[in-house]
Amino acid sequence: MVTVAVDGNGADLGPAEVAAGASLAAAHGIHVLLFADASKVDTVADGVELVDAPVSIAKADDPAHAVRSTPEASIVQAARAVAEGRAQALVSGGSTGSALAAGLFNLKRDRGIYRPALALPIPRPGSNPVIVLDVGANVSCRPEHLVQFAHMGSAFAQAVLGMEAPRVALLSNGEEPAKGTADLKEAYERLSGDGGAGLNFIGNIEGTRAMADTADVIVTDGFTGNIALKLIEGVSAQTMLAMRDAAMTSWRAKLGGLLMRPAITALRQQIDPEVTGGAYMLGLRRIGIVCHGRFTRRGFARATQIAAHGVEEDVIGRTRAALQEAGALRASGGGIAGPDEDAATIA
Amino acid sequence: MVTVAVDGNGADLGPAEVAAGASLAAAHGIHVLLFADASKVDTVADGVELVDAPVSIAKADDPAHAVRSTPEASIVQAARAVAEGRAQALVSGGSTGSALAAGLFNLKRDRGIYRPALALPIPRPGSNPVIVLDVGANVSCRPEHLVQFAHMGSAFAQAVLGMEAPRVALLSNGEEPAKGTADLKEAYERLSGDGGAGLNFIGNIEGTRAMADTADVIVTDGFTGNIALKLIEGVSAQTMLAMRDAAMTSWRAKLGGLLMRPAITALRQQIDPEVTGGAYMLGLRRIGIVCHGRFTRRGFARATQIAAHGVEEDVIGRTRAALQEAGALRASGGGIAGPDEDAATIA
Repeated sequence: MVTVAVDGNGADLGPAEVAAGASLAAAHGIHVLLFADASKVDTVADGVELVDAPVSIAKADDPAHAVRSTPEASIVQAARAVAEGRAQALVSGGSTGSALAAGLFNLKRDRGIYRPALALPIPRPGSNPVIVLDVGANVSCRPEHLVQFAHMGSAFAQAVLGMEAPRVALLSNGEEPAKGTADLKEAYERLSGDGGAGLNFIGNIEGTRAMADTADVIVTDGFTGNIALKLIEGVSAQTMLAMRDAAMTSWRAKLGGLLMRPAITALRQQIDPEVTGGAYMLGLRRIGIVCHGRFTRRGFARATQIAAHGVEEDVIGRTRAALQEAGALRASGGGIAGPDEDAATIA
Repeated sequence: MVTVAVDGNGADLGPAEVAAGASLAAAHGIHVLLFADASKVDTVADGVELVDAPVSIAKADDPAHAVRSTPEASIVQAARAVAEGRAQALVSGGSTGSALAAGLFNLKRDRGIYRPALALPIPRPGSNPVIVLDVGANVSCRPEHLVQFAHMGSAFAQAVLGMEAPRVALLSNGEEPAKGTADLKEAYERLSGDGGAGLNFIGNIEGTRAMADTADVIVTDGFTGNIALKLIEGVSAQTMLAMRDAAMTSWRAKLGGLLMRPAITALRQQIDPEVTGGAYMLGLRRIGIVCHGRFTRRGFARATQIAAHGVEEDVIGRTRAALQEAGALRASGGGIAGPDEDAATIA
């Protein structure tokens, strides 16, 4: 049985909601170690072990410093449980910054990994979600980082989402290989050669086709990826709002909107970010998932199940094997993160 | 009376459609010099002077080379007409690459400008368009470029779109000043200090709020801006498609969709890119506009009218004055473009 360590303090709806999610996951045969303010949790199901951890650093201004100086914080305790083998995967109920820092310091980068990345599966209506990485762990990335991200994302899509030969693309300002920054062009060249061995690399993709069923894994630096992710969220929401406003402009449109409401609700459920469980910290020695702070129990349960599934499917081992095969591992190899690299990741 | 030089060969619908747009603009008292394949244009209205220019470089692989080696090309002739004072502004009916190259080589960068930028007003339902620059002229940008873009975009919004104190923001991966790349943080600092004199600088903006009524001018490098622009187009279109598909899932939803159709059509017209006339080449000694290749006569007419309006409102002079006031002009000042800078712009 897989044990997942869950930090219950970062969620907007409070520890009780995360506990309810953990209980739902436990009903699917997962053992949960829940670190949360016990005074705010009434009850948990069998299979959930509640550890009282009232201190939260979810709102810390400097997450790296907070993680280092607050060993009693719930996210740090949860990450330590994974590092010490008491659990096999980490789920954070919110706060990307402190989850990333706690994950990096405790779960550690895997051997041969330059930089961990944050991968987010974004739901698309009528098709698989598209996995975008990095969505914010590394503001700037060198070509070798992007090459590793491509393998990390592909292995994740195969092991966790069950895709056979995920189509991997680089996000750029044009489809031609000569488009993009110097680093991106270099990454394109490597992925087209030996560095892309074992990958289904389809080249560059532009923003216009990012949400169409073109690529399954979209690789980019954390600055561009974070902007892209938030644009996708914002434009999708604004367009839905504009349609809703359009449905208020006449009696005829109002009636139409009323009749369409169940279909729109079904669409909203299809593209609900809770469906994909959150953002995945890839490149560590263990699986880590960061939920969105505004998730409900459904999202926390889903994240916990996906984390357990990732352990069962050995996503870490498969990623390592894929990187090895493509010769994309870091030469110096050391599993202990260099301070410069880690500082760059958390910044 | 303002004369606008129009290249009629780059449009998807052919020179006749651009000619029809020029005729519409002429009806508003603008004189148009139309460079196009005369064998494909049946008739033009009074006020439009058709110059036979059958050679097109709209599809050239290397626009900079094509512009230099093809003086008879319609876009080059049109740009030269502006450079020689026979017209006061340039409108291209398509092909951003050759229009940028022809603009740069003939219209020239204005004194003290590091790099011209491509500014695109993106329509938002229910509010002013938001101007995003640079959307593709410069893949990478230094802080002083971004500072100039801020002034160029603001002056354009005031002079051409009639906004009083346009809210100017930097596109970043977080709102805090410490977010973003090193260059972006430096630009933030300068814009918060003397470099932002005369500007209504509101700080960083994230993708989530780009299409909300938060900023009027969004400043970014051409790589990120191009990706952002295409994401906005793509996500908006995909969301509309998903809603249309949702309206096919049941008889009830179908009836609802039918009733809503006029309201949706009105919404589509509000966010039609033809409304804003195209992308603006800012930082040159004259006004240049690049239409989207798929525009109809309405879009070409609009671009021509906006170009003429920009001449009447002296957008070039106002931009120069704003940059001067903020001390953001290039020290060496020379109006003749350095070859390195120009190569960077066209790449």
